[in-house]
Amino acid sequence: MLKRLSAEFIGTYWLVFGGCGSAVLAAGFPQLGIGFAGVALAFGLTVLTMAYAVGGISGGHFNPAVSLGLLIAGRFDWKELFPYWIVQVIGGLAAAASLYAIASGAPGFAPNGFASNGYGALSPGHYSLASCLLIEVILTSGFLIVILGATSKAAPAGFAPLAIGLALTLIHLVSIPVTNTSVNPARSTAVAFFAQTDAVGQLWLFWIAPLIGGLLGGLIWRFVLSRE
Amino acid sequence: MLKRLSAEFIGTYWLVFGGCGSAVLAAGFPQLGIGFAGVALAFGLTVLTMAYAVGGISGGHFNPAVSLGLLIAGRFDWKELFPYWIVQVIGGLAAAASLYAIASGAPGFAPNGFASNGYGALSPGHYSLASCLLIEVILTSGFLIVILGATSKAAPAGFAPLAIGLALTLIHLVSIPVTNTSVNPARSTAVAFFAQTDAVGQLWLFWIAPLIGGLLGGLIWRFVLSRE
Amino acid sequence: MLKRLSAEFIGTYWLVFGGCGSAVLAAGFPQLGIGFAGVALAFGLTVLTMAYAVGGISGGHFNPAVSLGLLIAGRFDWKELFPYWIVQVIGGLAAAASLYAIASGAPGFAPNGFASNGYGALSPGHYSLASCLLIEVILTSGFLIVILGATSKAAPAGFAPLAIGLALTLIHLVSIPVTNTSVNPARSTAVAFFAQTDAVGQLWLFWIAPLIGGLLGGLIWRFVLSRE
Amino acid sequence: MLKRLSAEFIGTYWLVFGGCGSAVLAAGFPQLGIGFAGVALAFGLTVLTMAYAVGGISGGHFNPAVSLGLLIAGRFDWKELFPYWIVQVIGGLAAAASLYAIASGAPGFAPNGFASNGYGALSPGHYSLASCLLIEVILTSGFLIVILGATSKAAPAGFAPLAIGLALTLIHLVSIPVTNTSVNPARSTAVAFFAQTDAVGQLWLFWIAPLIGGLLGGLIWRFVLSRE
Repeated sequence: MLKRLSAEFIGTYWLVFGGCGSAVLAAGFPQLGIGFAGVALAFGLTVLTMAYAVGGISGGHFNPAVSLGLLIAGRFDWKELFPYWIVQVIGGLAAAASLYAIASGAPGFAPNGFASNGYGALSPGHYSLASCLLIEVILTSGFLIVILGATSKAAPAGFAPLAIGLALTLIHLVSIPVTNTSVNPARSTAVAFFAQTDAVGQLWLFWIAPLIGGLLGGLIWRFVLSRE
Repeated sequence: MLKRLSAEFIGTYWLVFGGCGSAVLAAGFPQLGIGFAGVALAFGLTVLTMAYAVGGISGGHFNPAVSLGLLIAGRFDWKELFPYWIVQVIGGLAAAASLYAIASGAPGFAPNGFASNGYGALSPGHYSLASCLLIEVILTSGFLIVILGATSKAAPAGFAPLAIGLALTLIHLVSIPVTNTSVNPARSTAVAFFAQTDAVGQLWLFWIAPLIGGLLGGLIWRFVLSRE
Repeated sequence: MLKRLSAEFIGTYWLVFGGCGSAVLAAGFPQLGIGFAGVALAFGLTVLTMAYAVGGISGGHFNPAVSLGLLIAGRFDWKELFPYWIVQVIGGLAAAASLYAIASGAPGFAPNGFASNGYGALSPGHYSLASCLLIEVILTSGFLIVILGATSKAAPAGFAPLAIGLALTLIHLVSIPVTNTSVNPARSTAVAFFAQTDAVGQLWLFWIAPLIGGLLGGLIWRFVLSRE
Repeated sequence: MLKRLSAEFIGTYWLVFGGCGSAVLAAGFPQLGIGFAGVALAFGLTVLTMAYAVGGISGGHFNPAVSLGLLIAGRFDWKELFPYWIVQVIGGLAAAASLYAIASGAPGFAPNGFASNGYGALSPGHYSLASCLLIEVILTSGFLIVILGATSKAAPAGFAPLAIGLALTLIHLVSIPVTNTSVNPARSTAVAFFAQTDAVGQLWLFWIAPLIGGLLGGLIWRFVLSRE
């Protein structure tokens, strides 16, 4: 169990450090910056790489909404839900703290939201709360369907981390302008405390929406698509 | 059969929501937008991810031209053609409707064609009808050859969703400036009704050209390349 | 044999249509264009997708320098070399002709070199003949080492088209500014005749340099790295 | 042994030529340049492609910090450490020399740091020494965890080069603005001598930080995550 929780800690650390790190450090670099597409690729690759590395140990959730969806679909034990959630949040916070230490070593550093998620005034494109809620629910439920399908017995073995990581890239390609893309409450929580905006006050949405999405995806898989 | 049609519904929903969503929401975001290359990647990843997730259930067509091509090549039953087509179109329309609901939650929202396909005045680069017809036929037939080849017994198992998804990315990298890239009548139909342009009046081309391409690709595979 | 030559024709058609098509149609589109990185991805994906589709039929060369390198390494029969070369060149020319037909359907069309390769005044960054020769030799020989290694018995089965396609993407990421990237005489020949520049007069380099590179890569594999 | 050292020489040559080559030749090309995201992709693809090609021969390290981390984790023999390091450095230097010969064939060539790594005044975003040290240690240790995990028995066979190559892409997406990304002392050494800045005087950091990271990653894998 300690080994499994360590794997979740490290994986969520890598997700927040790599994904939010690319956004904070590299997205808007003058002329040569990686933009939203580069950030989308980075988030996906954090999951792809760590799912190949430690997925065999912990299952490679790195995300409370994923743990919930797997629970609903009957693939995860409810006794482990809270330990996983706690370790995921702590891993994310550790990543955000070290990222902040690095980023603040640049001349004229300003957090600029520090890659936090938001709606309304804190949405990159100033999308309404309703739009933000809807897109997070839809994308998280699709994410869970990909995860549950790609790890099912009918799917070819070994490709799940590829499909799941690239699903997260796809999700970011669509939704960074709307919510800065959460689909992961641990990722949202981790950076909110460093944003120096009201990101913490909006954090409730980025727990509720991904968790509803995870629940929905788990239900759709279990009662509509599953063959098991 | 219900499970298979559900898989086609969900897959086509994901294709339109992810692919057209990236175009509508993220392509032209100031400074950091993902551009045509990001949209191309998004379209490909919708198919890659859902083909790994539910390809084992429905075959993972998500596209009426693909269903036709598989039929011609002897890999799909003609009795299932129309049910598949209907579900694909409905799945696409559901995605476009939810995408419209989200997009309209931004201040100063304008549909700007809503990622619809077009020729002449509605082509992104104002390409002629003949150019648009030709490129859609060529690319759809190549798409079918990749699909039929990558899922044949001679091809290595498990890699088909990767090859097929990335073929769709390639197709978009080439042809977004010409037709905004269809190769999929369900995708074209879904967004045409939200475009607030004459996209609906041009929809006939984006049924005819991909279906001719699907037919051609199926014939080339069956009578020239197939070993089965 | 007819089936194998058909596969080489289709594969080389796809390579030139997709790769050069992305360069001609999409690279420089205002604001949203895919740039050199998108073109690099497109070239790689043409090979990745068709190698999965028809690699089991013809070996998936799509390139005279690759056929030569495989011959040197003892993996290809010299009796088939010229038939392969001829079909590759014809497939490429067919692709360039259809691409020209499409591209000329845009208002104010100008070929702008039509994605042809060049040195000196015809190099995108005006690199010298010596630089162009050197980079084409180095990259083609590296390409052959990747091809021969990834298809050897020591390599994991099924991944070769992925490694080979992405090697071609890498090669373009490095060298488009120098020669517009050939490493493939069939690709260079195909578009030279549509360039409306002196590309045909420079074509000799884009046969000689890739063939030297293919030879070198084949020799290095056979006498230094091979375990067979 | 000669075959193994040849594979390390060629792989490290390819890494420096492809990765640094994309940065020097293509990153800042006017309008169409590949930017940091293209360079990140190029670095990752050098490792992905050569690990599929020659990983079965030498293990595919191409990096002194990787060799050290594998040693710490008990996967590599200490007798081979220095021969590997020496060959990696020489391979990198040979690549940088040939790259310099090519790059200097452009009119008005200036090295502009020649893709060397740096901190403070030589960091692309002028990050402090402490930030540079910290990010190199974190990313190299994460890199080693991915390498050790993806090549462990619990991971699906054949996918390791994919995971490891894309981990290097991710690392560059995050850290090019900070240190220009090393995580590889051979890569840093290779280009420092061509930079015509004080890159050589800062080289100590790009040996120490990646080696600490490699050590740390090896220890974390061995004592926390390993199941072997």
